[in-house]
Parts: sequence; C-alpha cells; structure tokens
Amino acid sequence: MRIGRAITKDGNAMWCEYADGRVYGLDFKSMHRGEELDAGVFLAPVRPTKIVAVGLNYRDHAREFDLDIPAEPIIFLKPPSSVIGPGEDIVYPRGVKRLDFEAELAIVISRRCKAIPREKAKEYILGYTCFNDVTARDLQSKDGQWTRSKSFDTFAPLGPWVETDLEDPGNLSIVSKLNGKVMQSSSTSNMIFDVYYLVSFISNIMTLEPFDVIATGTPPGVGSMDIGDTISIELQGIGELRNRVSTQ
Amino acid sequence: MRIGRAITKDGNAMWCEYADGRVYGLDFKSMHRGEELDAGVFLAPVRPTKIVAVGLNYRDHAREFDLDIPAEPIIFLKPPSSVIGPGEDIVYPRGVKRLDFEAELAIVISRRCKAIPREKAKEYILGYTCFNDVTARDLQSKDGQWTRSKSFDTFAPLGPWVETDLEDPGNLSIVSKLNGKVMQSSSTSNMIFDVYYLVSFISNIMTLEPFDVIATGTPPGVGSMDIGDTISIELQGIGELRNRVSTQ
Repeated sequence: MRIGRAITKDGNAMWCEYADGRVYGLDFKSMHRGEELDAGVFLAPVRPTKIVAVGLNYRDHAREFDLDIPAEPIIFLKPPSSVIGPGEDIVYPRGVKRLDFEAELAIVISRRCKAIPREKAKEYILGYTCFNDVTARDLQSKDGQWTRSKSFDTFAPLGPWVETDLEDPGNLSIVSKLNGKVMQSSSTSNMIFDVYYLVSFISNIMTLEPFDVIATGTPPGVGSMDIGDTISIELQGIGELRNRVSTQ
Repeated sequence: MRIGRAITKDGNAMWCEYADGRVYGLDFKSMHRGEELDAGVFLAPVRPTKIVAVGLNYRDHAREFDLDIPAEPIIFLKPPSSVIGPGEDIVYPRGVKRLDFEAELAIVISRRCKAIPREKAKEYILGYTCFNDVTARDLQSKDGQWTRSKSFDTFAPLGPWVETDLEDPGNLSIVSKLNGKVMQSSSTSNMIFDVYYLVSFISNIMTLEPFDVIATGTPPGVGSMDIGDTISIELQGIGELRNRVSTQ
C-alpha cells in the first residue's frame, strides 16, 4: 500500500492511504483504511529524526567519473529541517552558484533498531519512496565536507508516498527528468551496497528511529537546475516526486 | 539559571533547575522553580532535533597543526541518536582503533529561527552547555567525510545543564581532563568564529529549532581515550561534563 501524510481542507495533518487515484484516511496503528479524504496539501510522507545518505553507490556512476568502487559506504547526514514534500518548491539559496538534483531511492525505517544483521534488515523497513538529494555543488567542492552543500532548507524532497509492498527494491528503474527531459536513467540493480546491507551498516553505527530515512545514492547523469525548472524523480513501482525550483 | 532534565525516582522525565547544590522541578514555560526533586538520573539537558558542529574554530588549534585559518566555518552534523547525558558511558565501538575526546562549548537554541543577523543571534540562544565531540579518529581519516566517525551512539555527551545567564561566552576557559589530567586548556576568546556569528551563519543555511545544539569547535590538545578512562569537559561559568568510556 501507499501511505503518506496530508493536510485536510480543515487544516489537520493526518496519515493517509493513496489508492485508485483517491486519498483515504489511514489508522496508522491498525493500517486500516478510513473515509475518503478531501485533502488540500500533500506532505512529505514521513517526518524523519535523521536522514542518513550514502555517497557514491552506483557502479555506473563510479565508472562515469572513473572513481574506485568504495570498500565501505561513505555516509553523510541531511537535517530534518531540509525535508519538503511533493509539489513544494526547492528554494535556490542566494549565493549558491550551482544547484544539482540527485535521484535516489529512499528507505523508510519502521521500528527503532540497532546493529541489525543484513538478513534481518527487511523486518525494520516500512517501505520505500523517492528522494532528491539536492546539492549546492559549488559549496560541496569548496568545503570538502559535504554537509553545508546538502543541508539547506528544502534540499531534501521526499515522497510522494511510502510504498510498503515493493517486491524487489534491488531491481527498479530510477529516472530523473528536468522539465520533462530524461537526465538520469539507471536501475537500482547497479547499487554497490544494496538496501539491506545499508540498513545493517548504518544501524551498526547509530540507532535508527521510526520514520528515519536512508537515501541510497544516485546513478550517473546528475546535473544542475535553474529557477523555474521542474525536477521529477521516478522510481519504478513507487511513483513520481515532482518539485519546482524557486527563488529565495 | 541552570536548567536541565532529570528522571525522578518514580520514573518521570522532567525539566529541572540546579541551584545551591540542589535540584528543583521547573515549569519550563514560566521558568518558575518548583519543589525540590529527589532525582535519580540526570539526562542530557535538552533533546536537539539536530546537532550542527563546526570544524577548525580555534586559532591556537589551527596553529598547532599549521593549518590555514578558514574563511568560513566548515560544518558537519551529528545525529540526535548520538546524544548522552552527564555520567552516561561513552561506548567504544568494536572495530574502532582510536577514540578521541574534543572539548567544546555548545550553544542551545531557544526558538525556531532562520537567517538571523549576527546582532540578533543572542535573542535565539537559550544558553550554553559543555559538549564532547567524540570522534573515531581512524575512521575520520579513512572516510574523508567526517560523518561516520562522529555519529556513533554515545558520541555526543552533552551537559550537565544549560546555563542561561552567561555574561560573555567569548571569554571562558575551556578545559578537558583525562582521568584528572589536563589535556586541553584554552579560552573561547581563541575562537575564529564567535557564537553569534555561528548562529547567524548556520541559520542562513538551515532553520534552527528549539533545543537544537551548535557545537563550536575544539581547542588544541585533543587526544585518545581507552576503555575505563574518565573524560571531563569543563567550561568556566557553566560546569563540568564527565563521562566514562566503556566497552561495547
């Protein structure tokens, strides 16, 4: 099923289920569908306490830049304050010279967990959604450390919903389109470290909380965005996350 | 005043005020002192949604390693899951080869804020506390990116309380002691970027939330810890944060 959060026309934020082109209320505990919603605004499907992102994690991306395949994942964090939902604007910060999109598959954690072995990782995954690891490329090069370049408000578009019934997250097409033109097109089968390995690796460093997000890296073809552009991230079997770039 | 959080003997976590060697309940909204508490466990004084930390920020530390004074702060994030309170153990992760302490002054944010000018920063600071930016030095070198090395559970000791009445955060002695022996001894007057500049700089990147923590960098003399060691971080006018290192 496809679950997320919406603000109803009377202003309440609530869990919802997306089905048959409609939106229904959702009792999150029982996962029972409620009444059809007259939803006004769709929010990011979850509110993570942290976003753990992975650097170079696609073989084809590594080949593109002639980089060595890393022996272990390189991780970084994006703050909860950077999250936006589907349809919200990515704000181009004043002073930034190059703003890039990065299409990613995001893992959403279901339960608090720590030091999970790879073979049990699936039990702690609520589902999957689309993620755009927006990056101020000029600041990434300048700082050396990646945090500032990836932490601005609106730099973590997430959504449109969490797909909880994905059969095989390791064999999905992943595409980004800039104003409708395909920019990245690959498959999650090109991941160097698969989703279960990542949950295990990261949970051996830090306790993961319900709704925490792991962003699993981007395939080749990243590029820059300008004010007014529309960027969409499409993951097979999940959906499409679309955001516009606006001025500060 | 000195405010924090404690678990009372009947198991409730609550705000408290430390005064005259005693602990009192605290109504956080009114900041009125309540009854004396029979507190069992003292917690980290706040629960941040994010910890924004600053790399090289002491002139004397830069001189120690013959590094250039940076033109802008280099920031990184530590996850909320890494926070521990005074007296809790720092856990030495299996596989880590060198575990370092870093004494730091921590700023605690009072109100949600974004793009605050330096001259207004003070209005958004709840107070100050001691921070230990625990770092797996071997992983920091290996990864290049600092996140993994600084994000393990227990790697962000914070406390013992938030001092809300500090006259001048720019002129405090800062000391770390390993098993009672002075390892770092400097003054916050050696900071390259002062606390108000940092609040302004960081809030121009990301929205800061109530209780978010900014860790302001460490002076010279960082060193490694072994299992069984006791590390204490002392900030003049604030207090002493003490933690033991234990095995996983």
